[in-house]
Amino acid sequence: MKNLLILTERIPFRRILTKNVKVGTNFKTQRCLASLVQKDARKNAEIDFTAEKYTHLQRNPNFSELTQEDISFFQKILPSNCLIIDKQDDLLPYNIDWMRKYRGKSRLVAKPQTTEQVSRLIEYCNGRKLAVVPQGGNTGLVGGGVPVFDEIIISTNNLNKIRSFDPLSGSLVCDSGCILENLDNYLAEQGYVMPLDLGAKGSCQIGGNVATNAGGLRFLRYGSLHGNVLGLEAVLPDGTILDNLATLRKDNTGYDLKQLFIGSEGTLGIVTGVSIQTPRRPKAVNVALVGLSSFENVQDAFIKAKEELSEILSAFEFWDASAVKLIKDHLVQGSRFPLEDNYPFYVLVESSGSNKVHDDEKLLCFLENLLEKDIAKNAIVAQDETQFRTIWSIREGIPEACSKAGSVYKYDVSMPLEFLYKMVEDVRCRFTDAGLYGEDLAVNSITGYGHVGDGNLHLNISAKSYAPEITALIEPWIYEWIEKHKGSISAEHGLGLMKAKYLGFSKSKSMIDMMKKIKQIVDPNGIMNPYKFISD
Amino acid sequence: MKNLLILTERIPFRRILTKNVKVGTNFKTQRCLASLVQKDARKNAEIDFTAEKYTHLQRNPNFSELTQEDISFFQKILPSNCLIIDKQDDLLPYNIDWMRKYRGKSRLVAKPQTTEQVSRLIEYCNGRKLAVVPQGGNTGLVGGGVPVFDEIIISTNNLNKIRSFDPLSGSLVCDSGCILENLDNYLAEQGYVMPLDLGAKGSCQIGGNVATNAGGLRFLRYGSLHGNVLGLEAVLPDGTILDNLATLRKDNTGYDLKQLFIGSEGTLGIVTGVSIQTPRRPKAVNVALVGLSSFENVQDAFIKAKEELSEILSAFEFWDASAVKLIKDHLVQGSRFPLEDNYPFYVLVESSGSNKVHDDEKLLCFLENLLEKDIAKNAIVAQDETQFRTIWSIREGIPEACSKAGSVYKYDVSMPLEFLYKMVEDVRCRFTDAGLYGEDLAVNSITGYGHVGDGNLHLNISAKSYAPEITALIEPWIYEWIEKHKGSISAEHGLGLMKAKYLGFSKSKSMIDMMKKIKQIVDPNGIMNPYKFISD
Repeated sequence: MKNLLILTERIPFRRILTKNVKVGTNFKTQRCLASLVQKDARKNAEIDFTAEKYTHLQRNPNFSELTQEDISFFQKILPSNCLIIDKQDDLLPYNIDWMRKYRGKSRLVAKPQTTEQVSRLIEYCNGRKLAVVPQGGNTGLVGGGVPVFDEIIISTNNLNKIRSFDPLSGSLVCDSGCILENLDNYLAEQGYVMPLDLGAKGSCQIGGNVATNAGGLRFLRYGSLHGNVLGLEAVLPDGTILDNLATLRKDNTGYDLKQLFIGSEGTLGIVTGVSIQTPRRPKAVNVALVGLSSFENVQDAFIKAKEELSEILSAFEFWDASAVKLIKDHLVQGSRFPLEDNYPFYVLVESSGSNKVHDDEKLLCFLENLLEKDIAKNAIVAQDETQFRTIWSIREGIPEACSKAGSVYKYDVSMPLEFLYKMVEDVRCRFTDAGLYGEDLAVNSITGYGHVGDGNLHLNISAKSYAPEITALIEPWIYEWIEKHKGSISAEHGLGLMKAKYLGFSKSKSMIDMMKKIKQIVDPNGIMNPYKFISD
Repeated sequence: MKNLLILTERIPFRRILTKNVKVGTNFKTQRCLASLVQKDARKNAEIDFTAEKYTHLQRNPNFSELTQEDISFFQKILPSNCLIIDKQDDLLPYNIDWMRKYRGKSRLVAKPQTTEQVSRLIEYCNGRKLAVVPQGGNTGLVGGGVPVFDEIIISTNNLNKIRSFDPLSGSLVCDSGCILENLDNYLAEQGYVMPLDLGAKGSCQIGGNVATNAGGLRFLRYGSLHGNVLGLEAVLPDGTILDNLATLRKDNTGYDLKQLFIGSEGTLGIVTGVSIQTPRRPKAVNVALVGLSSFENVQDAFIKAKEELSEILSAFEFWDASAVKLIKDHLVQGSRFPLEDNYPFYVLVESSGSNKVHDDEKLLCFLENLLEKDIAKNAIVAQDETQFRTIWSIREGIPEACSKAGSVYKYDVSMPLEFLYKMVEDVRCRFTDAGLYGEDLAVNSITGYGHVGDGNLHLNISAKSYAPEITALIEPWIYEWIEKHKGSISAEHGLGLMKAKYLGFSKSKSMIDMMKKIKQIVDPNGIMNPYKFISD
């Protein structure tokens, strides 16, 4: 309690949070957008083609190549401003992923404005065996949303209308190309909130969120899209419009087919409309930053948070000392860091509720208990929106700080909480044993952070440069480690192209067989997003 | 406010709730169990066989009939106390559904003790084309869990072990035959709670809950099983054990196959194990009873509840004056009914949270606002466990009160909230116009109640006796009405045999086609729960 008060006075963080502070707002969004806008065509043109970089990938000879006849057909269906054909500079932002790691060779981007247009496009492509990549905001991290070879890109950019919102039930129905942040801003005016929030919210689209089963910052509070999506409209490869755009919370009439599309990464069809359950927007949001001595303490603090904050707990994020070192080295002046002393672990605790006074009392009581029981060494509560943003920006700045430290090997995994940090320690041991880990060695930083509440770890390994001996030390060892500890090789990013061949580490042969059978009946020609996780 | 205080004093309901009061506890459970136990074999033997009552149903000639060789095989796999063979009295409780509406002719019940036994059983049945009905607690309301002809019953009664519980993450892993109430009691000791609760919790099994995507009383707070189930273990018709019993909150590796089994009603395989996310058990639970003048007021009160109670709102149930009349006529002495005056509508509001003082303040403030704004006419808050149970028992007594008024036609539907009660009014008009609705007429009571928060209406039509002219007035008119208002013909009960042929009213042809294709690849011989919703 003493520590809490002293620090609160020193910073000085006052006790008043503005009512309209945005939940889990972060600054990465703006940076993401800026970097997207600033894309330099010349620089993009220097990125290697995926097909040439990953030589094990072969173009499927069953797929047709685009002809003038095909182009004429597309021109009949879509107005000219909805097509990009053979214009290299214009095609580049669609052929290259956000990480600039993958680059396809597509000659054509189609941007339909209606579901019917999507249907006619896909039906034609299927008949002609022209392969297709659905693309939303192109913010994916595993190369799932860009072509590998010459697949046609069907972009949902022009499907961007809100269809309806019911303030009684909170159900929102919209086109799949609506940008997440726009939807959240629209809902804010109605007193509601989107049940998901991501760093990429300024660019990512709800259709892409659904297709990749995006997790993000509000997952702990509102759960997964499997629970929040009420209905979908999707176009199947044969052009069928699967109309399941219900706004009902309960509907037990047959198999819940929409669930198959949630997380299917565009391999079964294109999501064109989404119906989603939205909760009331919290009136009070608090955030605290806590310093702790061990990962056991992090776990204890999480148990306490579930017990004491319970229904108002909306985020429980952790990171290690290594992350803070990188942030201080590259992003924030040490003196501006909210906690002065260094701790092995840090936790960000956010509460969201309907009554500011009640929430303040619960949060302060929780923090005092942590300090009194010696679970935490130090704690601080944001007192205004600036402080709120400062604390969140530390958490959100970690990926960027890692990138500034060198070339980053990124892993997004989930596993039972007790093993979450052990993985980071084991990776450090492995690189230490190999004599590669240290300030002036090949790998200078191994950082662990993530969503404790969701058992979701982000492991970032910063190296002087990408090197085969480093990769060889990590893979497949890390996937075997995850399999052994009953984890998932992809918690929230999906498989895409990057992890396509590692599916077997997280799913059994019988499950993969069943997935393939489903893929086969829905997309017998395999035109939907080929070469990605479910392709042979 | 005046009304609230006056009534609070008069009843007299004090302000103290015991900490350990059970959430949403109800009394139907015990009555259900009692009636199950007291089943009279002679009375059961008088129930008509489904095959003879519903003459449009024909036994599928592709299915084999049970031979002595088959029996010998089963006797090799299972100990004798896990088999019931040709003993009519012992078979009866498995052949007859809880409603005593359906009666099958199965000669054999198998009660495997392990997943491997289930696998061997089903693989054999599939090879021999012996049809199978999976059966859990046999508490279903649509005839989905009992045989129609001579299907073999595979009961999950002996799969009843809790496999693991992680107090850090709250993930529970158990056999599918565990009884819901037992799981909840187990979790209570650990400070956790099952995210679902049903009237039948004393008998129903978690595997059946998953297979039917059970909704129930905590749905508003914790959402659907599609969001709460973390993993499943299921045996497919070919004997494959689909092992997806993960405890991870996030796992984006391929299609989420477990979702297909949630709500599949035993037509794809048998669920043998369930992994489920459980929340912290609320420390404080309050319940209030509110009297209102119109269904518009009910809707306004719901909007207010979402706004003011927000994260602590755990139930919002409504019923009409007709329900109260039946309760007073058949179950509760008028003088013992908590609200003295009569109102056209009643609402039960429950809050569950982590801080009693905060929750009391929120609930009382909410109720005072309702009264001040004239949204509610009267309100009362339970002050101890007895009063808590009294209020819940009114809501839970409605089905029984309806049954006492005569033969009941039951409909469980969901639709956009604005139309929820219009359906009841339209049904009343229809029967009034036909000259059949009135105290001494064929239909004496038409009652609407249900889960407002989930858009879920239970419509009960009490008649002097079941009669073809009444049925003809209701069906298919009611299903067309639901289709027109974008509702679902089954909100939470499922389709089973009862609603099998009406699926087309809630799902499009393309969706049913896709369901059938999935059924075909998983169960090509169609042995799993035949004659139910997905059979031709």
